[in-house]
Amino acid sequence: MANEQTSRKVAIIGTGVIGNGWITRFLANGFDVVAFDPADGAETRARQSIDHAWESVEQLGLHEDASRDRLTFVSSLEEAVLDADLIQENVPERTELKQNVLAEIDQFAKPTAIIGSSTSGIKPTELQEKMKYPERFVVAHPFNPVYLLPLVEIVGGEETTKEFEQQAYAFYESASMKPMIIENEIEGFVADRLMEALWREALHLVNDGIATTEEVDKAITYGAGLRWAQMGPFMTFHLAGGQEGMRHMLKQFGPALKLPWTKLEAPELTEELQERVIAGCETHAGDRSVAELERQRNEFLVKLIDLVEDYWP
Amino acid sequence: MANEQTSRKVAIIGTGVIGNGWITRFLANGFDVVAFDPADGAETRARQSIDHAWESVEQLGLHEDASRDRLTFVSSLEEAVLDADLIQENVPERTELKQNVLAEIDQFAKPTAIIGSSTSGIKPTELQEKMKYPERFVVAHPFNPVYLLPLVEIVGGEETTKEFEQQAYAFYESASMKPMIIENEIEGFVADRLMEALWREALHLVNDGIATTEEVDKAITYGAGLRWAQMGPFMTFHLAGGQEGMRHMLKQFGPALKLPWTKLEAPELTEELQERVIAGCETHAGDRSVAELERQRNEFLVKLIDLVEDYWP
Repeated sequence: MANEQTSRKVAIIGTGVIGNGWITRFLANGFDVVAFDPADGAETRARQSIDHAWESVEQLGLHEDASRDRLTFVSSLEEAVLDADLIQENVPERTELKQNVLAEIDQFAKPTAIIGSSTSGIKPTELQEKMKYPERFVVAHPFNPVYLLPLVEIVGGEETTKEFEQQAYAFYESASMKPMIIENEIEGFVADRLMEALWREALHLVNDGIATTEEVDKAITYGAGLRWAQMGPFMTFHLAGGQEGMRHMLKQFGPALKLPWTKLEAPELTEELQERVIAGCETHAGDRSVAELERQRNEFLVKLIDLVEDYWP
Repeated sequence: MANEQTSRKVAIIGTGVIGNGWITRFLANGFDVVAFDPADGAETRARQSIDHAWESVEQLGLHEDASRDRLTFVSSLEEAVLDADLIQENVPERTELKQNVLAEIDQFAKPTAIIGSSTSGIKPTELQEKMKYPERFVVAHPFNPVYLLPLVEIVGGEETTKEFEQQAYAFYESASMKPMIIENEIEGFVADRLMEALWREALHLVNDGIATTEEVDKAITYGAGLRWAQMGPFMTFHLAGGQEGMRHMLKQFGPALKLPWTKLEAPELTEELQERVIAGCETHAGDRSVAELERQRNEFLVKLIDLVEDYWP
């Protein structure tokens, strides 16, 4: 996890589950972290939570400079952000509250600092409204547990510059993350929209008395869930199409989109959408044939099944 | 993988990708397998496909009686099913074709044999219509690759008896599977409905120009996909709720169900639905506190991230 970098100071504003997850991740990756949260006992809870998570990040591999001693709690937001290269905001999910906190961060941060918000749904253009230097603001939406899952969705608002988006990308990458820049601002961004679709369908199944929560969970963990740790829905179906990949798959299973297999109506499978999906999969697969991808998948699945058998609930 | 059992003879009717997956699974679990497929070259393709998959099942661990020599191809359906304890039908996904093949299987199979269909969507009541002994018929829907993924959805039709459903459960379990009995017949059963919701939302995202196929895949594999190999959506959210589990989680994130975070409308979060979901999670969690489950999850995630880094596309 050694990284070449000059900026190594991060401020965390708001230390709930997500804020503490960020602190742990940045400490494990060798950053200095300054934290601020006005709530009583926040520092004690944060340090407990970091201690609790430390074993996991240790097992995953610490940066050579990693130390829990690099965390300082301060008593004002101003003091926290003053010297930081990245400020991560994690206050409760209310638009006005976030706007005000972000404006305050903006006021005290150095102009070159990146400001990220952990919001899971509020659009960046709304959040940057009250900022004087909104060009360096991005949504940087992580996933729980933040100290383990590498995904972070980066979404700029109308006032955000591409340059700062790219800087944010590099910064989160230097904390061992897999950042993803989302070009369009939409509610729920990308990952939560996918998760919500599954979640809502799961609620429908329970609501309609078709399956229990336990059955829904089993239907995922013993089946598709095993594949999703390695491949998303598109690559999975690219492999299901045999030699011809996604092109064949859409011919064979495209008609199922008309069936009432979920409460969600599918988009029309136009020529254009088909070509977009096929080209996307072929580009992603690159030189690797479906047979080669299949070999890799099998190798992975055998190891995963070995691993997961000890952990299935 | 050693199992106590007396019935060890299986017939596989139709040897495409799914049929060959079943053959491999049953051979690897020490069964005798008789296969029938009228297509030219079916046996050659099947044996190639089994050879191809054999390395994987070997790595996973073979039954002591496992041998590829236990596979026999025969030239008529009658001969294939005559002596089998379980007959698995895997012909193309057309209702009438399946009904006719199942009626023929029914005619020649011994009356105590279980008859399973691999259909991914046709309801069992429809499929058993032309059978004389429909009580022993179940849908037994597997997941690709069948020789690795353990999930099989068992769905009986109106004429199926509970006794045969239970026998089918035990039989598939003796082939190292995780069977799940689905009480209600619905289109797409349970697992495909969940997968289709994710798949349809993914198509919407690509269709609306929000994300590429590669980005959708990344949004899964680097985030929620890592959790789904161990836990389904309900247990995942039970953990996200902290000490209070799902009860707290629904209070905190329930309102997000009203947001346009996917194209899929959520069910109304009634008191009754909430209680059903909370009770389901609490029962499933059993004695294990959220903290204990969290510890297990972290231990698993650390090992999985170590593993998956070599395999991410």
